[in-house]
Amino acid sequence: MAESDSDSDIEIMAQQVPCNCLAAADESGRMIRHKIFRRALGPKDIHISVTYSGICHSDIHSAKGEWGAQAYPYCVGHEILGRVKAVGSGVSKFKVGEPIGVGCFTDSCRICEECGEGNEQYCSGPGGTCGTYGEKAPESLHPGGISQGGYASDFVVDENYAIRIPEKMDVAAAAPLLCAGITCFSPFIEHGLKAGQTLGVVGLGGLGHMAVKIGKAMGCEAIVFSRSSSKTEDALRLGAAKVVISTDAEAMKAHARSCHFIYNSIAFDHDVQPYLNVLRTRGTMIMVGGVPKGAMPGGTFAIIPRGLKIAGSCIGGIRETQQMIDFCAEHNILSDIELIPATPEDVDKAWARAINSDVKFRFVIDTAKTLTAPDAA
Amino acid sequence: MAESDSDSDIEIMAQQVPCNCLAAADESGRMIRHKIFRRALGPKDIHISVTYSGICHSDIHSAKGEWGAQAYPYCVGHEILGRVKAVGSGVSKFKVGEPIGVGCFTDSCRICEECGEGNEQYCSGPGGTCGTYGEKAPESLHPGGISQGGYASDFVVDENYAIRIPEKMDVAAAAPLLCAGITCFSPFIEHGLKAGQTLGVVGLGGLGHMAVKIGKAMGCEAIVFSRSSSKTEDALRLGAAKVVISTDAEAMKAHARSCHFIYNSIAFDHDVQPYLNVLRTRGTMIMVGGVPKGAMPGGTFAIIPRGLKIAGSCIGGIRETQQMIDFCAEHNILSDIELIPATPEDVDKAWARAINSDVKFRFVIDTAKTLTAPDAA
Repeated sequence: MAESDSDSDIEIMAQQVPCNCLAAADESGRMIRHKIFRRALGPKDIHISVTYSGICHSDIHSAKGEWGAQAYPYCVGHEILGRVKAVGSGVSKFKVGEPIGVGCFTDSCRICEECGEGNEQYCSGPGGTCGTYGEKAPESLHPGGISQGGYASDFVVDENYAIRIPEKMDVAAAAPLLCAGITCFSPFIEHGLKAGQTLGVVGLGGLGHMAVKIGKAMGCEAIVFSRSSSKTEDALRLGAAKVVISTDAEAMKAHARSCHFIYNSIAFDHDVQPYLNVLRTRGTMIMVGGVPKGAMPGGTFAIIPRGLKIAGSCIGGIRETQQMIDFCAEHNILSDIELIPATPEDVDKAWARAINSDVKFRFVIDTAKTLTAPDAA
Repeated sequence: MAESDSDSDIEIMAQQVPCNCLAAADESGRMIRHKIFRRALGPKDIHISVTYSGICHSDIHSAKGEWGAQAYPYCVGHEILGRVKAVGSGVSKFKVGEPIGVGCFTDSCRICEECGEGNEQYCSGPGGTCGTYGEKAPESLHPGGISQGGYASDFVVDENYAIRIPEKMDVAAAAPLLCAGITCFSPFIEHGLKAGQTLGVVGLGGLGHMAVKIGKAMGCEAIVFSRSSSKTEDALRLGAAKVVISTDAEAMKAHARSCHFIYNSIAFDHDVQPYLNVLRTRGTMIMVGGVPKGAMPGGTFAIIPRGLKIAGSCIGGIRETQQMIDFCAEHNILSDIELIPATPEDVDKAWARAINSDVKFRFVIDTAKTLTAPDAA
């Protein structure tokens, strides 16, 4: 048996990994079924059978070319949960059959100061951070010359860019933690969010709802600021202490100086002044919603007289992502999701709803059950 | 003798303190000679003979009504150095004859969280921080109903809002530390500026030149970013390791990701992106120049991908101001100044030059020698 396994390993390593996927056909973002290849397994590589793949709004922006032109068909997805199907000869951290996760990037230079500090997402070295999808990359690493994401049956990743997933967390609702979860956890750690503090959450979507859960698990009181009362029930169920309607001037005034931190996940231009007003002295507004123009204070007078801070934050490093998964496992934190089959029609519908903010709070594609790996050629 | 001193104390406490000053006549900011009264000494009050009074650009903004309408004649100045002339019966921290300083505020609520933490400049309690000048205040505390500043022969302040000045620091060049010095020192402490780090300084004026000196004394390498080479010699003399011309795209590119912190003291709208570019990953740009509209990043994309922070900071608390003075005394740090006589004509000229950034780097009024206290009525 051992010899037979070894033969099998060699065969897999010698050839590229065929993979069925869902890919955007063009700038419309419309999904089609597509077949791609992952690189042949190198010594440090892991072949993953994808079980669940989360849908992040970044997928939509990228697939539609809103963040730059893309080549099509284009497979996105960077909240990837799966099982180890095979490992390269030098893999020491994972074994065949174990649950495994991949987030928003799959490589970095490994030699710059940022990589050395575990901040691979901010890699400043040659090539920089290699995004899980849409990144121009050597043909040898990403057949086709562009990295392709996780709306797919199979994935290949270097073990140093994979996350250990506790057995109980191999569930659809854990997939979004790999992007949405770490995008909350990392700035909370970086900026020293502490038990007993008050955390304001602005934008109760995929990121915001995780901020409420993780913030509460860290011992904070979470206050959700929302433009309408329609999200009140959900917010309280998620663990928020209360919901403040941000268009209610009296309510906002009553909560002036109430929050040590604001987690602002609104991804379009908006007036941030009302949220600065509810920050306590020397408080920090954490910005995670990418807005090319806007969503910034009008002038420095908005932050100087009370010593306020505006902090950008981008996902998190590999070590920190592992800490986040372990923290969520310990505190039984999962995302609130809607599970959908891996068909072009279902993903098209889900994207349309996501664009209308009509999702509670993240779609996850049921990859394993509905997108079978092709037979090896 | 003891009895005679005591009689004298009682007499002083029983009556308001007459005071000669220079005051803005109207919104033009034009100086006139004026006479005002300070409150009669309460038990915790100190009567100060002002020796030196620094000129801060805030004085000009305020006197010209640029930050809100004022009542005239209006005496400004919040970098006040002097000698204790008399003390109230309950004063324990200062003795007659000692050097003493007063900065940007002279009172606060003393009961709010901010005051409790020594951040009186951010007081959130009843009445808030009482600015050294231009603050509406009870007649009993500020005869005339508005606080009047330090371009004056005499000053009265509660001992809890006064700063101990080492004997060797009773020099004109120490006065600006009470505003410009603390406006650098406080954010450096708050944000953890460390020896060995690189500090970028943008805007080499009253604040910026102190940032170079204090940053260097803290063990940092200071890089001055300047629009022209005209300030190179001064910057190097002040202790900067180098000067980078901010309009030289190549030079700016060569310094990309070079600074742990940027101290941005430009007090008008400007494009901050070039300075964000020279911040290291997760670096912080400290904003101290009050700009009603502008001097902010264009959108959140400017700060998210590299985890950058924009931090407002406003002077510092009393305890921190004392630490700053002690630090500057230990490291022989003073401001670079031009000393001018306390005449309306000289202050008018100094203000005109300050508006044109034609000062290296702070004007100080020689109050003691040229503005004599009036005889007590």
